[in-house]
Amino acid sequence: MNARLEGLDWIAADWGTTRLRVWAMGADGRVLARAGSDRGMGQLDRAGYGPALLDLVGPWLGDRPDPVPVLVCGMAGARSGWAEAAYRAVPCAPLDPASATRPDGADPRLSVLILPGLSQSAPPDVMRGEETQLAGLIAARPGWNGVACLPGTHSKWARIEDGRVTAFRTFMTGELYALLAGQSVLRLSVMDAEPDLPAFDTAAASGAGLADLFSVRAAGLLGDVPAAAAAGRLSGLLVGAEIAAAEAFRAGAPLALVGAPALTSLYARALAAWDAGDPPLIFDGSEMALAGLTAARAALTKVPA
Amino acid sequence: MNARLEGLDWIAADWGTTRLRVWAMGADGRVLARAGSDRGMGQLDRAGYGPALLDLVGPWLGDRPDPVPVLVCGMAGARSGWAEAAYRAVPCAPLDPASATRPDGADPRLSVLILPGLSQSAPPDVMRGEETQLAGLIAARPGWNGVACLPGTHSKWARIEDGRVTAFRTFMTGELYALLAGQSVLRLSVMDAEPDLPAFDTAAASGAGLADLFSVRAAGLLGDVPAAAAAGRLSGLLVGAEIAAAEAFRAGAPLALVGAPALTSLYARALAAWDAGDPPLIFDGSEMALAGLTAARAALTKVPA
Repeated sequence: MNARLEGLDWIAADWGTTRLRVWAMGADGRVLARAGSDRGMGQLDRAGYGPALLDLVGPWLGDRPDPVPVLVCGMAGARSGWAEAAYRAVPCAPLDPASATRPDGADPRLSVLILPGLSQSAPPDVMRGEETQLAGLIAARPGWNGVACLPGTHSKWARIEDGRVTAFRTFMTGELYALLAGQSVLRLSVMDAEPDLPAFDTAAASGAGLADLFSVRAAGLLGDVPAAAAAGRLSGLLVGAEIAAAEAFRAGAPLALVGAPALTSLYARALAAWDAGDPPLIFDGSEMALAGLTAARAALTKVPA
Repeated sequence: MNARLEGLDWIAADWGTTRLRVWAMGADGRVLARAGSDRGMGQLDRAGYGPALLDLVGPWLGDRPDPVPVLVCGMAGARSGWAEAAYRAVPCAPLDPASATRPDGADPRLSVLILPGLSQSAPPDVMRGEETQLAGLIAARPGWNGVACLPGTHSKWARIEDGRVTAFRTFMTGELYALLAGQSVLRLSVMDAEPDLPAFDTAAASGAGLADLFSVRAAGLLGDVPAAAAAGRLSGLLVGAEIAAAEAFRAGAPLALVGAPALTSLYARALAAWDAGDPPLIFDGSEMALAGLTAARAALTKVPA
């Protein structure tokens, strides 16, 4: 009587601050279905996680003899999330499914495990969710050593050596852009415009960073600067400042960009303006999250419970 | 019948974005009275300036045969202020009272002149109000050559050569602190606390700047960091980043700090951690604004109208 997704073996879930994404997975690794909602960690109290997950995956379940495994990465494992999955300290492999946390309040037809994030003591830093994308990158390119840059609200740069994350750094570039473009005096010049790419390139290559932020406003007071050029200039200054500040951490290593295509292509432009090294590898962040969750699922089914 | 301030010769006014400050001046240069309000440019439409000024200086006026001169510096001269006083381009002396603007809507017992700000074409930059503090610094230290740093919401660094401003740079340090401490993810660690000074010193000296902003939050997630230490760390990172970014502009020149005592002492701490050069000269910003307005008044009364 009940609907049920034929061949459903397990469910992958990437639960961030603003979004929840789920994939219905077959035993052969195929994606049978996908769904998503804006019920991210920022929208939920502890009791809200179970229902938010069921809203998306309920239609896949029907009546089943055994609960369906659900593997979750991201902010659902934060202290103020569904259930705290304590950070694992680097250096370490990005995933250890054996240290996952089982939250209360899931539908009995689901067997939910939340994967932990990574921490670093010096300098103090944390990540939740990006470690799973790093595991996906390692699964996609076994043996690749280098630095992965995951641009976003909080960009992460992580050093990958022999399948382990040995160090990482967070840059608040996306959040700085949102605050400066939306709420600082620069909003009077940026006016919610989409960044213009030539202005982005020039600003990113200038390396001026913080020293030139106010010029975004001043240029508009002294002449006629389109809002898109102001937005592109602000974005380029901030991304350029991130790349400059990450230079010592990167230390000339090969680079991989992992993220939403719009962001990785922007960072690739800025990197091209910045140095003449080999172009970075580029991976879709959502695909890498799924690849990482798939690697974690494989590890769990290989090891006897 | 009407009250009147005995000996009133002219009125000095520093009209910023958030504050209006006025001084009643005697012919001998003495300050006879002071007043202030929070009716800054950010609170006013064009018609509001005349009444906001009169509210403060009205009690000083009484019935007078001739209008009292009022010299105004700051944001009242912005395009969206009381009356636009077009920028003067550097290099130039910081003040030229002959290019002041007379606004409409002042009480007939007042003769108001608004002094213009300064502009620079490359990199694009502007100031309104700080040029008057620079004129005050030049009046206080005739013949001093060096770089003046005026810390604040928008910190200004200006090169002074032979009584002229030859170049300047703006850093959005104060506004960045307010946005990050009040509205970013870091607010969860800073919690409106007053910055702790040892944490400020360490962060300012680290030179880490943007690269370590997120550590303000991460350190609190990984251990127990008091909010005041988080606030001090954030403030030190931003002020340190400003000093580092201004290094090339300063180019080893002698330094003068001009501003509110709480801010200039903070910058002096950060500078001491940063380099071993001579300690900067330190001046009160409000006193320098008055000294600059006084110099402008003297220039106006010397030149035949």
